Amino acid sequence: MALAYDSGEPMDGSSGLPPPRVAYDRTPIHRGSVFAVERVTFRDDAGRVIVRDVVRHPGAVTVIPVLDDGRLVMIRNWRVAIGAWLDEFCAGKLEPGEDPALAAARELEEETGFTAAHIRPVGVFFTSPGFADERMYVFEATGLTPVPQRLEVGEQIEVVTRSVADLQRMITRGELVDGKTLGAFTLWKHGASGAGATP
Amino acid sequence: MALAYDSGEPMDGSSGLPPPRVAYDRTPIHRGSVFAVERVTFRDDAGRVIVRDVVRHPGAVTVIPVLDDGRLVMIRNWRVAIGAWLDEFCAGKLEPGEDPALAAARELEEETGFTAAHIRPVGVFFTSPGFADERMYVFEATGLTPVPQRLEVGEQIEVVTRSVADLQRMITRGELVDGKTLGAFTLWKHGASGAGATP
Repeated sequence: MALAYDSGEPMDGSSGLPPPRVAYDRTPIHRGSVFAVERVTFRDDAGRVIVRDVVRHPGAVTVIPVLDDGRLVMIRNWRVAIGAWLDEFCAGKLEPGEDPALAAARELEEETGFTAAHIRPVGVFFTSPGFADERMYVFEATGLTPVPQRLEVGEQIEVVTRSVADLQRMITRGELVDGKTLGAFTLWKHGASGAGATP
Repeated sequence: MALAYDSGEPMDGSSGLPPPRVAYDRTPIHRGSVFAVERVTFRDDAGRVIVRDVVRHPGAVTVIPVLDDGRLVMIRNWRVAIGAWLDEFCAGKLEPGEDPALAAARELEEETGFTAAHIRPVGVFFTSPGFADERMYVFEATGLTPVPQRLEVGEQIEVVTRSVADLQRMITRGELVDGKTLGAFTLWKHGASGAGATP
């Protein structure tokens, strides 16, 4: 259990604050097929010892597929973690070292049954930085052509298409409750271009 | 390891799909101070056995504090999980059984040093339903008055104010990378009123 000093470089470039110099120790306490859990021990500026459990996740991609008529391809996805169907953009976790753009193209084909002529980075965000390091890479897919859908074992998915106006009405009504889809749609609607896509 | 059947009622009311009837088993594999991890074993429609690790989280609140001149109060928050400062709306996890509106009022005071005359529900979303059940309850706070900031042990926070236009520019530039803040801002800008706030 050696102590080290975290260099802690800011990832988003938006803050002029210096990173705290925190002594920390990291102990693995769980490793599963999708994520691991690490117990992090550190001292705050006042020298107090803090212990936090952190989920280590390989990161994920989500794709906003835009049909030639402007409608968006979405999925209804059975989510085991919450026991509910959610309306979402298609998504999937990264394999270690995988190029997010290639993962985006793969998940688009597998889950929606469309292949894209163009995959463009839109941006990236942290899904739940209070306890997890998962990064969500967002892409836009255009030039869509149907291909066979290829669901993975355990996936239960229905493909639907929606206009942007429909999606906005769903947001107003509280019918869109997937955080990744809300975050991705916001970046896309604000014309984000993936400038910050590699934090 | 008894098998049970998940009733799996849809939580968002937006899908007419029946919930899959899945036999499942749940085994606790980790319990920490903020979240637990459970190993879920179930059979899909084809009868195949699937194993997934799921993070069980008590849920959290985030608050959009609106000053009388229309500017929003935000924080720069040191995030241990990612080793970076993030620009965010103030937030905090729920205690078991806690009323989200009361938690919102508390976190607003503790983290930003403002108390609110009005706390209004905006909506709710799942931060990362691929592996976690964390719900994020979103509130708007208005009628703000300064009070002493009271940071919890381990919190390192700087309070900043931003116009809505500034925030939108940050989104376009990829400078806002906290998913909760993106999701909350989107619900608020679309005039969501918390109709779906208790899934």
